[in-house]
Amino acid sequence: MHTLFVVGIGPGGAEFMTEQARSAMEKADVLCGYTVYIDLVAPLFPGKETYTTPMKQEIERCRWALETAQKGKDVAFICSGDAGVYGMAGLLLQLAPRYPEVDIQVVAGVTAALSGGAVLGAPLGHDFCVISLSDLLTPWEVIEKRLRCAAWGDFCVCLYNPSSRKRAGYLQKACQILMKEGKSPETVCGWVRHIGREGQCAKVLSLQELEKEQLDMFTTVFIGSSSTQAINGRMVTPRGYEQKCAW
Amino acid sequence: MHTLFVVGIGPGGAEFMTEQARSAMEKADVLCGYTVYIDLVAPLFPGKETYTTPMKQEIERCRWALETAQKGKDVAFICSGDAGVYGMAGLLLQLAPRYPEVDIQVVAGVTAALSGGAVLGAPLGHDFCVISLSDLLTPWEVIEKRLRCAAWGDFCVCLYNPSSRKRAGYLQKACQILMKEGKSPETVCGWVRHIGREGQCAKVLSLQELEKEQLDMFTTVFIGSSSTQAINGRMVTPRGYEQKCAW
Repeated sequence: MHTLFVVGIGPGGAEFMTEQARSAMEKADVLCGYTVYIDLVAPLFPGKETYTTPMKQEIERCRWALETAQKGKDVAFICSGDAGVYGMAGLLLQLAPRYPEVDIQVVAGVTAALSGGAVLGAPLGHDFCVISLSDLLTPWEVIEKRLRCAAWGDFCVCLYNPSSRKRAGYLQKACQILMKEGKSPETVCGWVRHIGREGQCAKVLSLQELEKEQLDMFTTVFIGSSSTQAINGRMVTPRGYEQKCAW
Repeated sequence: MHTLFVVGIGPGGAEFMTEQARSAMEKADVLCGYTVYIDLVAPLFPGKETYTTPMKQEIERCRWALETAQKGKDVAFICSGDAGVYGMAGLLLQLAPRYPEVDIQVVAGVTAALSGGAVLGAPLGHDFCVISLSDLLTPWEVIEKRLRCAAWGDFCVCLYNPSSRKRAGYLQKACQILMKEGKSPETVCGWVRHIGREGQCAKVLSLQELEKEQLDMFTTVFIGSSSTQAINGRMVTPRGYEQKCAW
């Protein structure tokens, strides 16, 4: 019985990894993943075998990892952020029944909603939704329905994959849907680019300003609820303690 | 200028902390927080000064931390899970304008949606909502509206604070609302109790079975979308790769 660790490494830097993630990579015989993520972690484990594939070869990469574990190696499959949230844990577990000798262990990591949230302040301090704007695997109608429901519920919203070369204008469409369905144009929003990496930058702005931003795929977007505030340049969604006592 | 680190430590054990969280606690002159969390981290930093207050004294604890930092100490304010998600970063940032000498740094951590998700498999592999069932600070009508919107949007849902002694029956009410608003009684669900701690246990079950469970406040609940599956005893929400190629 060999182990396939599916490891969420957080935004990238070693300081954002959990001890559990580091330990799983140490135990593994081979580190496997998308080239960019392996480049981030390989220097921490000099001499460790690595296997990389380019973007959009997720199924091949997962099969390779499961086959390699089946054949007798412990494998650490590297995901950025969390292993589960838009990560590869799901696909690996879907394929797992064909590899009965492999024990899959999922190692959680700090997803961009949390690491980006910390940069902005506390945008997700109350109930929130996480929605990906990528329609590569999800019909746009489903994404649009979820945006509408997020607005109706007055949720804070964290948007992953706000745009890419092929999907220009998706963030603008999302902002328009949210405003049409009840979010005020003055709703406090924020974005963070290159979270925890060189060149990190962030901005707090209104929803109507966000609609005009040109953001890339390295950016995570936060849209407040009706109670979200901008305080000293930070984005803060109160939990509600201020209602409970003299302030 | 002194620093108040708001530190998310994850579910509790040292292996779930990030290096950034550990480093912030090391740098701090004093560790401050709810007694249970300080008991978890104090043994890692022998001799470090600590300040604890019991539950429900959040505002007093935050004021103490800000005043102590204002007076010249670096303080690490300990939150379980993430610092922002139902954590104290929001309240501290709300109070911060009264303490202009204090630099607040938020340190993200692995919230229960992620750590519990890893135990179950990959329940949050696609768009999801996080909702707290606690009505101590949020009117029940708001919680109910968010549950309805989560069902309409076919989101995966992670429920925090599913019950407590004073709030028996809230999880049952939540399950009933979700079913009434469109989630199938057969929806794949799961729960995890004492995540990452001694006595951790977990179960995968249907929504109609979940409705009959008696769970306590140490439990995190996951409700699938219409595409969530039970695979080899794990709870898995596919991202959709299986539609893209021969399977």
